[in-house]
Parts: sequence; structure tokens; C-alpha cells
Amino acid sequence: DLHQQENYFSREMLDRLSGKRADKVWMEAKRSDPGTVYLLFSNLNPMISSSKEDEDNRVESRLCRFRFEAVKDLLQKPQTLVIFLGVEKRKTPFSSSSSSSSPLQTEEVTQEPPAWFAISTDEDAAELLKRCREKHSCFPKLPHRDLLKLSEEEAGVVAQARSVLAWHSRYSFCPTCGSSTKMEEGGYKRRCLNSDCRSLKGVHNTCYPRVDPVVIMLVIHPDGNQCLLGRKKIFPTGLFSCLAGFVEPGESMEEAVRREVEEESGVKVGPVSYVSCQPWPMPSSLMIGCLAVAISTDIKVDENEIEDASWFTRQQVTETLLKGPRPALTIPPRQTIAHQLIRHWIGMNSNL
Amino acid sequence: DLHQQENYFSREMLDRLSGKRADKVWMEAKRSDPGTVYLLFSNLNPMISSSKEDEDNRVESRLCRFRFEAVKDLLQKPQTLVIFLGVEKRKTPFSSSSSSSSPLQTEEVTQEPPAWFAISTDEDAAELLKRCREKHSCFPKLPHRDLLKLSEEEAGVVAQARSVLAWHSRYSFCPTCGSSTKMEEGGYKRRCLNSDCRSLKGVHNTCYPRVDPVVIMLVIHPDGNQCLLGRKKIFPTGLFSCLAGFVEPGESMEEAVRREVEEESGVKVGPVSYVSCQPWPMPSSLMIGCLAVAISTDIKVDENEIEDASWFTRQQVTETLLKGPRPALTIPPRQTIAHQLIRHWIGMNSNL
Ligand SMILES: Nc1ncnc2c1ncn2[C@@H]1O[C@H](COP(=O)(O)O)[C@@H](O)[C@H]1O
Ligand SMILES: Nc1ncnc2c1ncn2[C@@H]1O[C@H](COP(=O)(O)O)[C@@H](O)[C@H]1O
Ligand SMILES: [Mg+2]
Ligand SMILES: [Mg+2]
Ligand SMILES: [Mg+2]
Ligand SMILES: [Mg+2]
Ligand SMILES: [Mg+2]
Ligand SMILES: [Mg+2]
Ligand SMILES: [Zn+2]
Ligand SMILES: [Zn+2]
Repeated sequence: DLHQQENYFSREMLDRLSGKRADKVWMEAKRSDPGTVYLLFSNLNPMISSSKEDEDNRVESRLCRFRFEAVKDLLQKPQTLVIFLGVEKRKTPFSSSSSSSSPLQTEEVTQEPPAWFAISTDEDAAELLKRCREKHSCFPKLPHRDLLKLSEEEAGVVAQARSVLAWHSRYSFCPTCGSSTKMEEGGYKRRCLNSDCRSLKGVHNTCYPRVDPVVIMLVIHPDGNQCLLGRKKIFPTGLFSCLAGFVEPGESMEEAVRREVEEESGVKVGPVSYVSCQPWPMPSSLMIGCLAVAISTDIKVDENEIEDASWFTRQQVTETLLKGPRPALTIPPRQTIAHQLIRHWIGMNSNL
Repeated sequence: DLHQQENYFSREMLDRLSGKRADKVWMEAKRSDPGTVYLLFSNLNPMISSSKEDEDNRVESRLCRFRFEAVKDLLQKPQTLVIFLGVEKRKTPFSSSSSSSSPLQTEEVTQEPPAWFAISTDEDAAELLKRCREKHSCFPKLPHRDLLKLSEEEAGVVAQARSVLAWHSRYSFCPTCGSSTKMEEGGYKRRCLNSDCRSLKGVHNTCYPRVDPVVIMLVIHPDGNQCLLGRKKIFPTGLFSCLAGFVEPGESMEEAVRREVEEESGVKVGPVSYVSCQPWPMPSSLMIGCLAVAISTDIKVDENEIEDASWFTRQQVTETLLKGPRPALTIPPRQTIAHQLIRHWIGMNSNL
């Protein structure tokens, strides 16, 4: 099967070049290269400019891209964080992605591909926006909604940058000894400044960005014709989604699916099969999407986490997929893996 | 497909009862219950007793189990950590595991199932060992080797306990502000003691155990008859294993497979398919096992991480699987997902 499902936030338009992260000379040269692309983040969100919706109602926002000259002053401020994101991928015959919207298509292959960096600054947001020549630029207020309006390519870049920045914002002290730490290796490492710290001997995960695996699952009724969806208290009226939960220490993905479904809905699950996954940069989850077959059907909702859960028929779900939100059932948008798991079950192709 | 691959460290013989973790009264009652089982950990490793190898050369070590009376004094020491692991699962017609070695089989179903706790103490190890009535008790020196000798059931318990304890040992300070933190919820949460800390507002992953997703993959040659294995400098002579690497922020599992394989071996990968996973509690990884199809074959080893990598034929691999270690090729033991991925490719059933 050559087809690989690609979810929103998953596309990698950049080669991360992890081997270059510790190469200070190379990195310094790339930082001041006139071809380098900078993205500006404030409060973990990127500066974007909103354009008219296109015919397909797809891309509505673009990342504001800056050159070295336009951000040079910010790079010099001690509070600024600069994260190396990678260099644009060369399209080769072996390249696994085959997008037609690549910014590289017309470029000479002999030229070095542009490097990308993310800058995080706590300068005044309104002042920062003045740097952008485009109209309607802003920093999104609601990332869960506003970061879903990017192109596939830019969404992937934002997933990477936002997760790394969220880690720096939450993990600036050493968890092992409480001392301050400093950023290294282009943003992919933090080193404890206390020279006696255990974290400096050997390799410790405290020094590396955190990625939280989460299972998200569509539970199928034993009759094969209904699926289990639930809603949290904070969901808008009518919205139901897949159940989900953090994988716990010492647990397999499949056992995490069984445990979370039983905890949240009381339903017991038998076979579990992996479908596809999605990085979710709020702040740094890896959503692991599965289909799960129920072996019991009575629902007993865990009221701490879920407000309601119930079985929906194939027909109800198909109607919502085809006609959009219904009073009885709204599902999350196509950019979410919950949506894609539901489409997958119904037997519809991804409409990403 | 009803068959679900179950890897070592994956079995869950306990119901984690996460809903009870915050219930102090229930927890206190369970702690002093005479039926409760305690495991003793020193330096992240459990006290085990070694028995003769059985006929199948399988289980060689058992966890030393203690009752409340035997560890009461340790529970009172301020340095002792007590982690709630869960209660023994009732065997029900719906139960997904169907082991014949369950300690519950002969018990009355009307009785409350025993709770299990892990105790971590820094008391002198030799003194601790005197508490054990069994001969040949010890704390393993090499967890990578010695923790692979347990039964499936006990291995699962150790995976959970060791990962949680490793988190406490490395994350005792708040990464957000550097203050001390205290354990809560049976060991599944740490709370910052600085009442102004950001980590107290809303939900933050800094307060929860860390699980690091790692992809581990068997890369198949385009001809379908060879697989790519590599070795680290620290491996014993002749040992080769699957390539593996940490999933990075904002990355899908499939992209992580492609990136790590190309970084470590120079080989480009096309389609990736998930096979099965394995918790690996050294200290707290989730190993995500995949098959990956190569779309290039030239090997260029990344010498920082790998000493050698090469293509092995189906025949070479089969010979090692059937006859054990060969001079030309040794593979990791059956308890590792690397071994199981190789068996899976060869088309042999798991021999767990
Ligand atoms: N890594 C984590 N990040 C955030 N919340 C977590 C994490 N691990 C466990 N939790 C807890 O899990 C709850 C959400 O439940 P669930 O997603 O179903 O596992 C949160 O409200 C937290 O109490
Ligand atoms: N969570 C983590 N824990 C330990 N090492 C990490 C982590 N994330 C990245 N690394 C780095 O990854 C190296 C191992 O490479 P790999 O397993 O191929 O990704 C380690 O030596 C660390 O430098
Ligand atoms: Mg949970
Ligand atoms: Mg839950
Ligand atoms: Mg949940
Ligand atoms: Mg890596
Ligand atoms: Mg690597
Ligand atoms: Mg590796
Ligand atoms: Zn430190
Ligand atoms: Zn704090």
C-alpha cells in the first residue's frame, strides 16, 4: 500500500538537518544569510497575514516571512530565542512528498536551499506587526482555531516551531536540580548551568524537547454500524469528537486506548488498530490515531472529563460529513485527526 | 484481525484505577491493607530473586513481594516515594489478556482485588535485601539485561513503576520556575510549591510524567529480500539491531522514521507501516515499531551514532533466528521489539 495518509501539521517541507545544529560556524553563517527566512512568534503564536478565502475555502492565512535585515535588531536582544527549523527540501526523484505548491520549484538546484528560523520575542506585539508590509497581519488569539487556516506546508513548519518554543517557555529551569539552563544546538537542547548537576553526566531526557504521545480513537460498536463519540463541557453545542488520552508510563498504545476508553465511557475495547498520526503543537503532543472495536456497549460517562458520550450511526455521521454541521451532530474540522479517523471509518478518502 | 502482537513490558496485569489516585482516603486504606503488595526499588531497580531457569529457558527472576507489615517503617521515612500501581485485574469474559499464570485464578471474585505499590528508598541496599525471605535476592546491576528475565506479567508492572520512578528522580524541581515540587495523586503528578508559578494555572505537562516516543524500524531493501541493520559502538561484537530515534516536536511517526533512517544510514525511505509498540522503561520511552521500505540502497553511516550499518539477507537473518547467534550476525533477544520486528518480517510468529 503506497498511499500514506497525511494529516494537517504533518507535512515536512524543511529538512531539519539535525547534524548541523551543533555546528556554530555554519549556523552563524545561515543566520545572516540574505536568503534565510525568519518567522516571528509572540506568546507562542506566529505572525500571520489573512487573505481572502480561496475557491475551495482552504488556505486563509499565510506566515509573515522576514529577511535577516528586517529582524537583525531582534536577534541581538538577550531575551530573543532563535530556533533553527531546517532548510527547504530539494525536490529529488526520491522525494517522498510531491506537493505542487513548493516554493522551490522554480529555483536553481545549484543554489544552497534557504534556511528557516523561528524567532520568539517578548517585544510589544503591536510594534512587531508594524514590521510586516502585508495588510491584515496579526498574532492569532486562538491557536486551536487560527492555526488551522494555514497551507499544509506552513502548518508543518508551525507545528515544529511552536512545539519547540513551548518547551523553552515551560522548561527553562533544570528539573533535576532547579538551576537555570541555557539553550544549545539551534534550540533542540538545554544545558544545566550547575556544573555539578547529574543531568550533565550521560544522556538525560531533561535536556531535550518533550513530545507527549496521546492516543485518539474511534471506537466501533460490535455491530460495526455505530461509533462512539464524546464531548467535553467546553465544546460548542452539538460538537462530538473521538475519545483521547495521554499514554501513561510503561504502557503500550493499544493498552492506552483500552484504558482511556474504559475510563471515559465505561466501554470495553478489544482489538485496536493504528490508522495514522498527527503532531498537535498545543503545546507538543503526538496524536496517535486508532480504530478500536468495542466488546461492550453500555456507556457510563466519567463526568470529570466528559460531559456526554454516545453511539452514532454510520448514517448520522455520513450526513454530517456530507452536509456539514447538523443540530444533532457536529464533528471537528478536516484539519483534525478526529475528523480523519471518522472519514476513514466511513470509507471516504481524506479530503485534506 | 483479532491477533494483537504483545511485546515484553507491554502486558498490563493491573488495572491502574486512575480515578482513585486523588482519593486520599481510599489510598490510605489500601496502603495499610494486609492484602496489598509492595515492591521495593533501589536506584530505580526492583528487588528480585533469581530462580533456576525453567524448561523453556524463560522466566529466571521474580519480583520480591512484601506486605504492609514488612515495609511499614520505610513508608514512614520522608525520603521514601510510594507509587500506586493499580489493583489486580479481575478475569472477566471480556478481559483482553488471557494468561494462564495469573495470580488471581484461584481467588474469590467477591473479595477486593489486591492493590500494588512501588516503594523507592535510598536506604542501604544490603540492609534492604535482608528483608527478603527468599534466597538469591538482589537489585539488578544492569537493567538492560537483568530486567528482561521476568515473566510477562511482572515485566509490565516493572515497566510502569520504573518509568514513573525515573521521572520523579529527574524531575523533582519545577522546570517552569526552578522551585521544589511535591508528589501528588499516587505518584502521577508533581505540584510546584511556588504559589505564583505559571504551572499552577491551567494544565501543564510539566506536572505529569514524561513518556518519550521513539520510532524503531526495520528498513526493507527495494528487492524485498534484505533488511538494514546497524550497530552502535557500545554493542558486543557481531550484534546488529534496527535503527531507532526519538520523535521530534511537530513530527509524525512516519516522518520521524524517514528522517532517522536517512540521518543514520543515508538510506531514503518511502512507505512506512506501523507494526507494534513496546514501553521501554530505561528510563521512559515508548518504542513505536515500524516496517519501512527503502527507495535507495547506498549506505552512508552517521559516525556519531552508528559504527556500522549494512544490508542482511533474509537467509542470514533466518539462520540467526533459528540457530541463535552467528559470528556474522547476532540480533537482540526476543524481549526487544527489534527482535520482534525482524521475526515479523521473516514471517515467523512471535515467540514471546
Ligand atoms: N502530559 C500531560 N499533559 C497534560 N495533561 C496530562 C498529561 N498527562 C496526564 N495529564 C492529565 O490528563 C488529563 C487529560 O486526560 P486525558 O487526555 O484523557 O489523559 C489532564 O487534565 C491532566 O490531568
Ligand atoms: N528525549 C530524549 N532523551 C534522550 N536523548 C535524546 C532525546 N531526544 C533527543 N535525544 C538525543 O538523541 C540522541 C540519540 O539519537 P536518536 O535516538 O537516534 O534520536 C541522544 O544521544 C540525544 O542526543
Ligand atoms: Mg489520561
Ligand atoms: Mg482520559
Ligand atoms: Mg481524554
Ligand atoms: Mg534523533
Ligand atoms: Mg538518530
Ligand atoms: Mg538512533
Ligand atoms: Zn541541573
Ligand atoms: Zn514552578
